[in-house]
Amino acid sequence: MYKMPDKSLGVALIGTGFMGKCHALAWRQVATVFGGEPPRLEILSDVTKDSAVRFARQFGFQRSTDDWRAAITDPAVDVVSITTPNSLHRPMAEAALKAGKHVWLEKPMALTLEDAEAMTAFAARNPDQVTLLGYNYLRSPAFQMARKILAEGGIGAPLTFRGVYDEDYSADPDLPWSWRMTKKAGGLGALGDLGCHLVSVMIQLMGDVSELTAQTQIAIPLRHSPEGPKAVENEDSALALIRFASGAQGVFATSRVARGRKCRLQWEVQGSDGTIIFDQENMNELWLHRTDDAGFTRHLSGPEQPDYAAFCPAPGHNFGFNEQKVIEARDLIRAIAGDAPCGPDFAEGLKIEKIIHAMATSNGRPVAP
Amino acid sequence: MYKMPDKSLGVALIGTGFMGKCHALAWRQVATVFGGEPPRLEILSDVTKDSAVRFARQFGFQRSTDDWRAAITDPAVDVVSITTPNSLHRPMAEAALKAGKHVWLEKPMALTLEDAEAMTAFAARNPDQVTLLGYNYLRSPAFQMARKILAEGGIGAPLTFRGVYDEDYSADPDLPWSWRMTKKAGGLGALGDLGCHLVSVMIQLMGDVSELTAQTQIAIPLRHSPEGPKAVENEDSALALIRFASGAQGVFATSRVARGRKCRLQWEVQGSDGTIIFDQENMNELWLHRTDDAGFTRHLSGPEQPDYAAFCPAPGHNFGFNEQKVIEARDLIRAIAGDAPCGPDFAEGLKIEKIIHAMATSNGRPVAP
Amino acid sequence: MYKMPDKSLGVALIGTGFMGKCHALAWRQVATVFGGEPPRLEILSDVTKDSAVRFARQFGFQRSTDDWRAAITDPAVDVVSITTPNSLHRPMAEAALKAGKHVWLEKPMALTLEDAEAMTAFAARNPDQVTLLGYNYLRSPAFQMARKILAEGGIGAPLTFRGVYDEDYSADPDLPWSWRMTKKAGGLGALGDLGCHLVSVMIQLMGDVSELTAQTQIAIPLRHSPEGPKAVENEDSALALIRFASGAQGVFATSRVARGRKCRLQWEVQGSDGTIIFDQENMNELWLHRTDDAGFTRHLSGPEQPDYAAFCPAPGHNFGFNEQKVIEARDLIRAIAGDAPCGPDFAEGLKIEKIIHAMATSNGRPVAP
Amino acid sequence: MYKMPDKSLGVALIGTGFMGKCHALAWRQVATVFGGEPPRLEILSDVTKDSAVRFARQFGFQRSTDDWRAAITDPAVDVVSITTPNSLHRPMAEAALKAGKHVWLEKPMALTLEDAEAMTAFAARNPDQVTLLGYNYLRSPAFQMARKILAEGGIGAPLTFRGVYDEDYSADPDLPWSWRMTKKAGGLGALGDLGCHLVSVMIQLMGDVSELTAQTQIAIPLRHSPEGPKAVENEDSALALIRFASGAQGVFATSRVARGRKCRLQWEVQGSDGTIIFDQENMNELWLHRTDDAGFTRHLSGPEQPDYAAFCPAPGHNFGFNEQKVIEARDLIRAIAGDAPCGPDFAEGLKIEKIIHAMATSNGRPVAP
Repeated sequence: MYKMPDKSLGVALIGTGFMGKCHALAWRQVATVFGGEPPRLEILSDVTKDSAVRFARQFGFQRSTDDWRAAITDPAVDVVSITTPNSLHRPMAEAALKAGKHVWLEKPMALTLEDAEAMTAFAARNPDQVTLLGYNYLRSPAFQMARKILAEGGIGAPLTFRGVYDEDYSADPDLPWSWRMTKKAGGLGALGDLGCHLVSVMIQLMGDVSELTAQTQIAIPLRHSPEGPKAVENEDSALALIRFASGAQGVFATSRVARGRKCRLQWEVQGSDGTIIFDQENMNELWLHRTDDAGFTRHLSGPEQPDYAAFCPAPGHNFGFNEQKVIEARDLIRAIAGDAPCGPDFAEGLKIEKIIHAMATSNGRPVAP
Repeated sequence: MYKMPDKSLGVALIGTGFMGKCHALAWRQVATVFGGEPPRLEILSDVTKDSAVRFARQFGFQRSTDDWRAAITDPAVDVVSITTPNSLHRPMAEAALKAGKHVWLEKPMALTLEDAEAMTAFAARNPDQVTLLGYNYLRSPAFQMARKILAEGGIGAPLTFRGVYDEDYSADPDLPWSWRMTKKAGGLGALGDLGCHLVSVMIQLMGDVSELTAQTQIAIPLRHSPEGPKAVENEDSALALIRFASGAQGVFATSRVARGRKCRLQWEVQGSDGTIIFDQENMNELWLHRTDDAGFTRHLSGPEQPDYAAFCPAPGHNFGFNEQKVIEARDLIRAIAGDAPCGPDFAEGLKIEKIIHAMATSNGRPVAP
Repeated sequence: MYKMPDKSLGVALIGTGFMGKCHALAWRQVATVFGGEPPRLEILSDVTKDSAVRFARQFGFQRSTDDWRAAITDPAVDVVSITTPNSLHRPMAEAALKAGKHVWLEKPMALTLEDAEAMTAFAARNPDQVTLLGYNYLRSPAFQMARKILAEGGIGAPLTFRGVYDEDYSADPDLPWSWRMTKKAGGLGALGDLGCHLVSVMIQLMGDVSELTAQTQIAIPLRHSPEGPKAVENEDSALALIRFASGAQGVFATSRVARGRKCRLQWEVQGSDGTIIFDQENMNELWLHRTDDAGFTRHLSGPEQPDYAAFCPAPGHNFGFNEQKVIEARDLIRAIAGDAPCGPDFAEGLKIEKIIHAMATSNGRPVAP
Repeated sequence: MYKMPDKSLGVALIGTGFMGKCHALAWRQVATVFGGEPPRLEILSDVTKDSAVRFARQFGFQRSTDDWRAAITDPAVDVVSITTPNSLHRPMAEAALKAGKHVWLEKPMALTLEDAEAMTAFAARNPDQVTLLGYNYLRSPAFQMARKILAEGGIGAPLTFRGVYDEDYSADPDLPWSWRMTKKAGGLGALGDLGCHLVSVMIQLMGDVSELTAQTQIAIPLRHSPEGPKAVENEDSALALIRFASGAQGVFATSRVARGRKCRLQWEVQGSDGTIIFDQENMNELWLHRTDDAGFTRHLSGPEQPDYAAFCPAPGHNFGFNEQKVIEARDLIRAIAGDAPCGPDFAEGLKIEKIIHAMATSNGRPVAP
């Protein structure tokens, strides 16, 4: 089906939270779904020995450690899954690259733009090592189909992008203050957590951003802590106008305090000959209108969409969130085998970082990211 | 039910197109629906004698004329419905005010901001005469319910507005050039036709705009005409960031070239304690989420929404577009009777005009409307 | 546009409730919407003199009476709108036919099958007088479009019908007992109120019913009254299997105790080459799938659907419940003018009655209606 | 989290098609998702040695064979996944039970009712061996939530069930004839493939069926084959009225020729105090209305629904079809460990078979399944 790496890939996984488990599930499924050489799940690293042992067993890794550097430099390891808090992304990614490993890193790429730039420069010096950032939503069959329709001119020239990524996980004013709400330890707010996903989607659909104007908002400026109320430093929401290099334009909005929204990554591309609509909360539906169509048609994910059939031969049976990561793993393996470029790598990730940091600092003035 | 005018109102209608017919249907229904003194449909004015005669008969007006000034100055007339092309709004509205009549004027208020300002000044000198602009979408039971929920704090403090008004009536590149696409004769483009509606909705939901940054786009710059290709001068679409006086923020988008969209006046208000969603294409549905709700609840229009029961006692039976105008007529009659203020009048209409003109000219710079 | 009656039609309206107002609005709008000779609203009849005077004024009728026989026999009257309780349908309709008038009668046709048969026989003896039953839902642009698609073979041969008409107006167990819940005074329950509408839709889409098997349910057998609990005699819900003369089959369900449903007249026709879906709660949407389509396409009501453009030239602006009745009035006028047959007349109405009474009495055995 | 089997379970998998892969993915994920002792993937059996070797490697099984009896009797094997064509279900299941193994069998249980009865009797003689039938749709978080709401009386007493399972995989008249369309080799048609799923759902929601009346249809009676047109013997669709032991009633419909439907397993339960709605094509949405609610509320799957959080801690991220099988595997493991009963086992499966066979043979007469 696709070119194989020269040898079976040895995998290290660092982190066992939300995305750690998601990576583990992907590594366990990728060969079963797509065929090819099954990866060897060599070593898992977690913060304590106990939890490392426990999760290695649960996730099916052969060995465990509480020393992430040991996992990264392990000679049996070819590729490292990094799913730790953002502040650890840079040291871990650079250590892995230094050790000659391929790197699969969760988003956002880094805590600061400087970190992202340094990491990109570091990766550029090691061009044989593949880097891949975990922008899951680029992998769903429906999103891949949307990109294909756009690439084939199925809706003509894209004119306008309208995108939103809203969740409500910080909407509760009684949610206590945490270090994640500081610029130093948490980095960006909604933009770093959600906005970067929407940017990853937007630039794959619309191409490069030439200029943007943004404004941000801290909806709940103070939150309680055992030491009394403390200030929230990073944005709860952000809004932006976008000019694309192609001449198209767009609006962009993201919020972590959007009551009732759970995974509302919703976008629309209006083109000269049609419109495509998508909402991640109904990720198996793509809505398409083309000139001469009576209205919008619901395309329910099925085998005619990229990669769906490897999971299920029957249409309309619902592809799931975690399965996006299996496709990401397959793309990574393929890239390591040299068969196809794969992204977003660190260079593309830096583009995304530049855009969200430009949004965070625009303060109503037009800026080029 | 509401205070009556001292005498039965005499009505003149100028114009017999889309909105002319809509006004006629409203005048014919208003007393049947709401009770009260039935209006007298005195005189109808159209461009030719023949068509005036024909439409007077069809719409149930007693007399007809091809001289709009005669209709306006007719002594039996108390209120004038003006539904003519935009360039005629100012002379007709001013003539009607001068003649001592109340004015019901279709949107947009005027061709230029200067006209709108002059008209507002003129109206201010005649405070006993009611002016009302035809912003239909403010009258639907669902929209009135939304305003009520907001006013009562049902979703807490509004944080963010996200609004769109898209149609595709100009999306076809083979649509020929017309004078409507010039600044001089047509005024604004999508903003004047669609955007003003969205602004009317936005400021009723969110309050005053303190600053906005906008950009516009002409998607199809040249259109064919018998004399060869001619330039389109006014915008096909516009995007804006909004800062409200309340501290809330918003994004705003409108397009007349949005393939597949027919009456997509869609907005969302996210508040500290909930979110409201609406789409005019499904104008009988209001979606509401409040803290502690499991998700969004569909409120289908019914007797518990303002004014619905006067049309139909049974819920879920579908209130229609034209019926919005019947409510507007009722509001006008009530305002003339002095019982309740009614809007948007010219002063409020000028606010809307200032906002859309600020959008049209912002060119990416922040402006105060 | 269509053939006119020889003279302007004189109208009598009996009843001023839900459907009385709906008829009045239709009579007031029909010429304004469709052109043609405006009807003369001659006389309105209500139960008391006072209310008759009041509603005649509100609805725009010239005269009023508390004697329905006087209204019916009035020499200026050509057509009688009957919107009174079911038990009055037969005497009023027969009196009107006897007086040489055309009859526009609300559904259900009669309290009992015997009444409906007698009325049909009576009408058959007066073939020059038009009878029309108020099955509103047959008139919406979306429904007319659906019939057109079916008639043109747009989804091939119809194979299966699946239809539901659910409301929840009797779901509350605290709703008190009323005479409407008796067989003698109320006739059928959900079948008479809702089911007959669904049958009217079903047979227009699918053709004649050759056999059906049904069962009914009384969900709330006792209801409180000032004299203590009393029995509910007619069905709260009914279910049926249908065999059509064409060989197609179907399922049918109706309930007046369906929690959360407001006007859920929802049906689906699956054909050899496609499927059509409709739900009256979103009466401006028709969903169509045809062989080779990727999925279902949403057809939002617009000028390409029958009769829409007469109300509004712009697509997607939402046709309303009451406007169905305006089309019904137009069809009646046209039928009186002899230009086109119009239905359901009493003969067709009797077919509907036979089907719902067969459902009410099937008790799980197959019956031919 | 749940009681563990005394030892790690050894697994044999027979079959590598649609459901074979689905079982493999479930076995590979179950411990990673839920914790507990990881199963040992001992041996995979497929029709040829080559494919068995290849799939064992792909699915991560240690050994392979082309002799299913060898796989079943393998001493390292504790549980057998049977995903072969229906005609093999009985011999394989009985062989596995005879060999002392637990059995995980895909639906429908057997080709004939006699087979299902024999299998159930066989299983009853081996009460320590767990049997589980692959009714996936019972496992989704949304369905589990629905059952919980019903069990807790969340919508009061269930009154009515309305269920559909439609797909269009046989709608194309050019689809060639196959042995699956014969009664002898294929067994039932739409009822065996789709209807049994809907029955499994229905009886878990509504309890036992006391009586049903059904009719079936063969929409495309002849299909082409190399030897010329051949007759389709089993039903393309079926419709039924249901009486439940509880006194509730229902309608039931299934089709394999429903144009445009992909996995339309859609049902609604109306209760005395509310209504629940579900559609498998949007399997992450449960719609709930309860007395006093304004309308239906969309519950998007999230951690508050059973088992969701083990896959993903964030709400609204979309649970997938294949993940239902992971929950099924967990339930099987738990049942083997003796911690909780698990179903549908063969005895419950026989109930389902009796119902679909009653539907297949009712021919419009009431029958007790």
